[in-house]
Amino acid sequence: MTDEITKVSIVVSKGSLDGVYPGLIMGNGALMEGIDAMLFFTFFGLDAIVDKRMDKLSVATVGNSAMRMPGGMKMPTLLGMIPGMSAFATHMMKKEMEALDIPPVREFIEMISDAGGKIYACKAAMDMFHLTKDDLCPQVDEVLTVGEFYEKSAGAQIIFT
Amino acid sequence: MTDEITKVSIVVSKGSLDGVYPGLIMGNGALMEGIDAMLFFTFFGLDAIVDKRMDKLSVATVGNSAMRMPGGMKMPTLLGMIPGMSAFATHMMKKEMEALDIPPVREFIEMISDAGGKIYACKAAMDMFHLTKDDLCPQVDEVLTVGEFYEKSAGAQIIFT
Amino acid sequence: MTDEITKVSIVVSKGSLDGVYPGLIMGNGALMEGIDAMLFFTFFGLDAIVDKRMDKLSVATVGNSAMRMPGGMKMPTLLGMIPGMSAFATHMMKKEMEALDIPPVREFIEMISDAGGKIYACKAAMDMFHLTKDDLCPQVDEVLTVGEFYEKSAGAQIIFT
Repeated sequence: MTDEITKVSIVVSKGSLDGVYPGLIMGNGALMEGIDAMLFFTFFGLDAIVDKRMDKLSVATVGNSAMRMPGGMKMPTLLGMIPGMSAFATHMMKKEMEALDIPPVREFIEMISDAGGKIYACKAAMDMFHLTKDDLCPQVDEVLTVGEFYEKSAGAQIIFT
Repeated sequence: MTDEITKVSIVVSKGSLDGVYPGLIMGNGALMEGIDAMLFFTFFGLDAIVDKRMDKLSVATVGNSAMRMPGGMKMPTLLGMIPGMSAFATHMMKKEMEALDIPPVREFIEMISDAGGKIYACKAAMDMFHLTKDDLCPQVDEVLTVGEFYEKSAGAQIIFT
Repeated sequence: MTDEITKVSIVVSKGSLDGVYPGLIMGNGALMEGIDAMLFFTFFGLDAIVDKRMDKLSVATVGNSAMRMPGGMKMPTLLGMIPGMSAFATHMMKKEMEALDIPPVREFIEMISDAGGKIYACKAAMDMFHLTKDDLCPQVDEVLTVGEFYEKSAGAQIIFT
């Protein structure tokens, strides 16, 4: 009742498909609940708002997090290391997402932006990866320093994903 | 003094043994301090409350996070990729946890539930992995949408692990 | 305006170079903004404050998170598994960090400590890895239980990285 969550500030720091979706789903879920949401893309998470990369994110097939595919299929560890299997896992995940009406990353970001969510890029990460604002998708509202990120996060729950 | 933490809402999003324990330890630590705790299992973290899987979680042996085993033993990167080594790392971690009186996942979840902690499963993740409430361990209090998760998190610090 | 962020409590739980930097950058960014910051090193993140290890952290070259190197260079997945490539990726990341005036881990922690940031180690993780206070770098203010961590986090946004 009291102390209801009224705003979330989600940090997206990973660049794999399975690393990016949690932040998008939690941001969109907040907006659908009438909760303000801002998403701050930093480190490898920047890839999700880089125009030339956001449609090509793939599932990280090594490491436990991708051993179990959506739909319950399990992938053996060694097979998971072969790049072709990453493509397969990515294909499976995209198919499953589609079946659940969860849009691809680009569309998801457009949807979040249209619903009033703010999309921010991290300046330090952009410098690190030698990117400029022109490299980013048009939904990006602003490039922020870490200090500015904290200012914009006033009143929000920060969720680092 | 002021603004003491009175409630934590822990999101468990990873399914490896080393990915699940941080959330359990932080949730249990909160309860022992008299702080309310709820745990929301989503994405691959769902495995920790799936009855048939929760006893079989293993350590992710590729990637830096598992290169150093509990007890200080270090594993070479290439060896870490062999499934047999994952079993060995898992065995070592379980042994170490036992020595520290940290219970296995199933028992830990029972303990948290008995101490008044709430155990929630994420609806979207359940759909994605084709699971029903019957697949979950009996300690699960409720299956929540992301929106309901935010409602239940009122007054809490959200900690995404 | 209201509910400005006045304190952050950053949990560093990963031990790879790319897993440690986000927490250091967010902690330092807070301090530079006049925001109080405490860093709690736990699980594999402990390595970042262990005197004999903190200068030797390396980039996790398997898994998507390190597929794209700073500077925009992309590493093929299979090559990423060869230990020599991890050394190369680590070298590249360090070089890039230097170009951006981001200090090495040890210096970064000294800087954060000098700026008034608090450095804490997790007791449970220290027990798990068989470490004592003597193994830690001199900037560590205190070893805390999870319960003490929550007490010290009063008034702060907890950010789990």
